[in-house]
Amino acid sequence: MNLFQKEIVLEQRGRGFHLVTDEVVIQLPELKNIKTGLMHILIKHTSASITLNENFDPDVRSDMEKYFNRTVKENEPWYEHNSEGPDDMPAHIKSTLIGSSLTIPITNGKLNLGTWQGIYLCEHRNHARSRKLVVTIFGDEE
Amino acid sequence: MNLFQKEIVLEQRGRGFHLVTDEVVIQLPELKNIKTGLMHILIKHTSASITLNENFDPDVRSDMEKYFNRTVKENEPWYEHNSEGPDDMPAHIKSTLIGSSLTIPITNGKLNLGTWQGIYLCEHRNHARSRKLVVTIFGDEE
Amino acid sequence: MNLFQKEIVLEQRGRGFHLVTDEVVIQLPELKNIKTGLMHILIKHTSASITLNENFDPDVRSDMEKYFNRTVKENEPWYEHNSEGPDDMPAHIKSTLIGSSLTIPITNGKLNLGTWQGIYLCEHRNHARSRKLVVTIFGDEE
Repeated sequence: MNLFQKEIVLEQRGRGFHLVTDEVVIQLPELKNIKTGLMHILIKHTSASITLNENFDPDVRSDMEKYFNRTVKENEPWYEHNSEGPDDMPAHIKSTLIGSSLTIPITNGKLNLGTWQGIYLCEHRNHARSRKLVVTIFGDEE
Repeated sequence: MNLFQKEIVLEQRGRGFHLVTDEVVIQLPELKNIKTGLMHILIKHTSASITLNENFDPDVRSDMEKYFNRTVKENEPWYEHNSEGPDDMPAHIKSTLIGSSLTIPITNGKLNLGTWQGIYLCEHRNHARSRKLVVTIFGDEE
Repeated sequence: MNLFQKEIVLEQRGRGFHLVTDEVVIQLPELKNIKTGLMHILIKHTSASITLNENFDPDVRSDMEKYFNRTVKENEPWYEHNSEGPDDMPAHIKSTLIGSSLTIPITNGKLNLGTWQGIYLCEHRNHARSRKLVVTIFGDEE
């Protein structure tokens, strides 16, 4: 069994939910060597998150952004952690609601997702930079 | 170390939270061979999810269904993704809130869960079919 | 590749979100032997959860506790599972919203987290005991 780890970067994006499956996979040519295994991704931030969801209709991503803005509101009078602006504490809460890591099976050199599943980067800050991920791939080679 | 992967199916169920530990384990006789390891499950859908929770009182599952229906409402006027009915976009949101994969330790050939923990299939659609899971098991044999 | 598993205990804490990175790591001297790998943690309970979030400002943890108490209220008239008090069903719901396991990369003998990321124990009961975790570490040695 082989195990491989590297850090990759996702380019800077605006606040919202973004489909990044291709941007992740293109940085991982090593996937092709794994016949059966798993890929783990950690996003090294506490104001952005990653999830799997629908990969076809962009309306799902914009509805998702609207839902999370409604369920985790800005400017709540009881927030005490406000040092970086009104999007600061909501970003931390969204990060814990959605999660900061994903594990995905690898089969025959490819991510084994459902037909309609893709990887979302969920950017919770108004002005973020690029985002760092640690990717760990392991499994049996062909 | 050994690694093993297979696809299993969970039978069609109505909308709600369902305890499926036994239905998962019975399809995985390979677990018995692992002395120490991990099992990863991915549900290959974006309108159902999986989680660990209380395995004894069915009221927990029905209260869970009620909570998620209240916190992710149907027919919000601002949903733009409605093509498959009022349960469509709420199902995607619940999927991201709850998550589409689980990793569980294996010890002495069995899932090493807490006494009160079980695997829930969370079915968010009114009329779903059976649900596909990819299961990856790895670890050291006896 | 090596794989190692053990059960550790987190000391009893009051209800709230608690930074426990150091308490976890100090119980895992085995981490130092892993050059590249992953650590998986499962909390063996359904009324506490674990997540990654901001490791510096304690206000983030208290704001998080306030948010989850508002979004998952006690004493909802429609709760049917109340046998252990008003914090019982909310604890189960929070556990599924936040999650009961974490997977974190290991690089050069240390957890490879972002600068501001730490491990939170989220204690959802008013009167809990200590909490049990199963930790599974695997990867390549130096």
